[in-house]
Amino acid sequence: MSELYRTFVSGFCSHDNIKVPGSGRGPLAGTSFAVKDIIDVAGQTTGAGNPDWYRTHEPAERHATAVARLLDAGADLVGKTITEEFAYGLIGENFHYGTPVNPRVPGGVPGGSSSGSASVVAAGEADFALGTDTGGSVRVPASFCGLYGIRPSHGRVPLDGILPLAPSLDTCGWFARNPELFRTIGHVLLGVQPSGAPTRVLLAEDAFELADAEVRDALAPAIAAVTAQIGTPQVVRPGEMVGLAGYGEWQTAMQVTRGSEAAASHLAWMQVTDPEMGPGFRGRFEAGAKYTRAEISEAITRRAMIEGYLSGLLGEDAIMLVPGAPRAAPQRGAEEAVYDDLRDRNEFYNCAAPLARLPQVSLPLGETASGPVGLGLVAGHGNDEMLLDLAVTLAN
Amino acid sequence: MSELYRTFVSGFCSHDNIKVPGSGRGPLAGTSFAVKDIIDVAGQTTGAGNPDWYRTHEPAERHATAVARLLDAGADLVGKTITEEFAYGLIGENFHYGTPVNPRVPGGVPGGSSSGSASVVAAGEADFALGTDTGGSVRVPASFCGLYGIRPSHGRVPLDGILPLAPSLDTCGWFARNPELFRTIGHVLLGVQPSGAPTRVLLAEDAFELADAEVRDALAPAIAAVTAQIGTPQVVRPGEMVGLAGYGEWQTAMQVTRGSEAAASHLAWMQVTDPEMGPGFRGRFEAGAKYTRAEISEAITRRAMIEGYLSGLLGEDAIMLVPGAPRAAPQRGAEEAVYDDLRDRNEFYNCAAPLARLPQVSLPLGETASGPVGLGLVAGHGNDEMLLDLAVTLAN
Repeated sequence: MSELYRTFVSGFCSHDNIKVPGSGRGPLAGTSFAVKDIIDVAGQTTGAGNPDWYRTHEPAERHATAVARLLDAGADLVGKTITEEFAYGLIGENFHYGTPVNPRVPGGVPGGSSSGSASVVAAGEADFALGTDTGGSVRVPASFCGLYGIRPSHGRVPLDGILPLAPSLDTCGWFARNPELFRTIGHVLLGVQPSGAPTRVLLAEDAFELADAEVRDALAPAIAAVTAQIGTPQVVRPGEMVGLAGYGEWQTAMQVTRGSEAAASHLAWMQVTDPEMGPGFRGRFEAGAKYTRAEISEAITRRAMIEGYLSGLLGEDAIMLVPGAPRAAPQRGAEEAVYDDLRDRNEFYNCAAPLARLPQVSLPLGETASGPVGLGLVAGHGNDEMLLDLAVTLAN
Repeated sequence: MSELYRTFVSGFCSHDNIKVPGSGRGPLAGTSFAVKDIIDVAGQTTGAGNPDWYRTHEPAERHATAVARLLDAGADLVGKTITEEFAYGLIGENFHYGTPVNPRVPGGVPGGSSSGSASVVAAGEADFALGTDTGGSVRVPASFCGLYGIRPSHGRVPLDGILPLAPSLDTCGWFARNPELFRTIGHVLLGVQPSGAPTRVLLAEDAFELADAEVRDALAPAIAAVTAQIGTPQVVRPGEMVGLAGYGEWQTAMQVTRGSEAAASHLAWMQVTDPEMGPGFRGRFEAGAKYTRAEISEAITRRAMIEGYLSGLLGEDAIMLVPGAPRAAPQRGAEEAVYDDLRDRNEFYNCAAPLARLPQVSLPLGETASGPVGLGLVAGHGNDEMLLDLAVTLAN
């Protein structure tokens, strides 16, 4: 094995390297691409740069979304490319499969971990290639091989069908020799550019089901106003996203993230100062300190899944409707159970924006017998102005 | 104390409630605002809703950036407002200071934790107010009190001078009764909107100092081309950001985040399968599993600081120049020390984009005697297209 490790090889994988023709139509028609072997191609086992991983896994059932978008846009897939094991490296050597050649530097390494992708593009064996960048794995091989390379904004290119390394850092990027092609690939993979005004409305049906009936009734006219202005909402049920068992798992991710970070922020001061605090408050910080490393890691993984899911759902052109709160204001001094129910139901769907770092407004467009209730609008990251503009146009 | 807990009070703090006139000029001239008592106002002790915190802390030396922006834009600060303790609550009661009245619901709680801010705006005692939203603390009181309220995209409104609760979730938002004012506050607090083309260039001098001399020389013509196209770069030294002791702390945040998430992703499979792996690879996953809960929490806090710092620096209209890699490709089979040096120097500044979730391209615009080297360009979150356009215009 160690011979291979010290041998220069083609950037293409040596195993089971199937080709998939593109649609033949679209902005990438006539171009060829390769994909790093941690990215799924239907019918082919994703190898992750490790023979034991390859041996113990089944062929992928479907293409990663990024691959599907490129095929739809007309590009032809010409093969999978060597990666450092599990994409955890920067040099570009692979103990099992060899070191992809750097066509630009005699004797030089290609850089990693997207070593094979950079290699085949620099060698002219593909017009462009997908890689991933967690800590430099597109940017560094691009620099070493004289290529255009991008690490996109976290969350902009969907990561489904791509083996995770560190979900809160992982991104799917690409290499090209030609700057115009480099840009066109971006238009295909990044989707719609921010337009300022939404063109799609999603209605989170399961979030409305969690609200009191009087809240749903009170918000119906506001939803009708949104419909009149933008269009009929597409009904969605975010709590049923694939991979998680419902909003309860969103809530857990929220509680663990908030609790553990809150404990890190303030518990030391509380332990030193022993302040007087209202009933239950210090307990929240103490409970936050008890989450285990495994619970925190799982919350991070779930959070990245939720972020990827919601950013794919919303894109740059949609808003999603939710209740601003699941009920009107409870009475002061209500049973603790009333407050707990509010906290629970709120957390189920109102944790979506915090977990996914998205903006959300509450617009005072509903009135129940028990008091006002807001309509919640969620948009893609950075599209805050889109929501603020809607606050004005929906009021008029 | 418990009497107060069950008593409705004004949303304004009862202690040391200073007023600060605004500039008198700007889009918010003639308006009044209040700020939640976890947000700094110069000369006033931030109380965090807890008397022992208030007693054991000094007056703030400067305004939070969000407060300063509002004052600059002409708004007059009329007071601090009651918060649930450490902003960790959803109901709006405060054991020590009382429950701010909900002017819209007789007997109803205002919602929290930005309870006082919602209360004073709903009562007409201020035109608008700053709150914070970690898990619903603006959105829920807005809904309960019949107000416009926003949780902005994470990272868009600077959080300096605001007491953290859970940094990866914390945001600074606002309440208003009037939708046009609600939007104008956004224009002031969110800064410049995405323009498509950058109008400012930053040059990360300390990142270039970490690169080989031949890399700096090779990239000088490309930097001159950027200067000709956009303008003279402003020299910045991100490694010297206030609050962290240099790039070494960025690197630690990166290593802990990547290592612990990578272990969560794959170590269980490795323990079951015992795969053959290249030298050093499995050790990276095993080392990642050894980071403590405290180290992970500190990495999250540092990451949020770095994200806030970089998004403030870049805004929506700037790009920052860094070397694509600190050196040209090393030779295959070089001493491990050569690779370690590359990993170290790369991580120092190339961890900025992953930690802050920002896009970065590497453009093949430099050529050294040892091989190609890229110019790195970093932009604000979501401004990927700005970087792709530059790839094309700088090539022509």
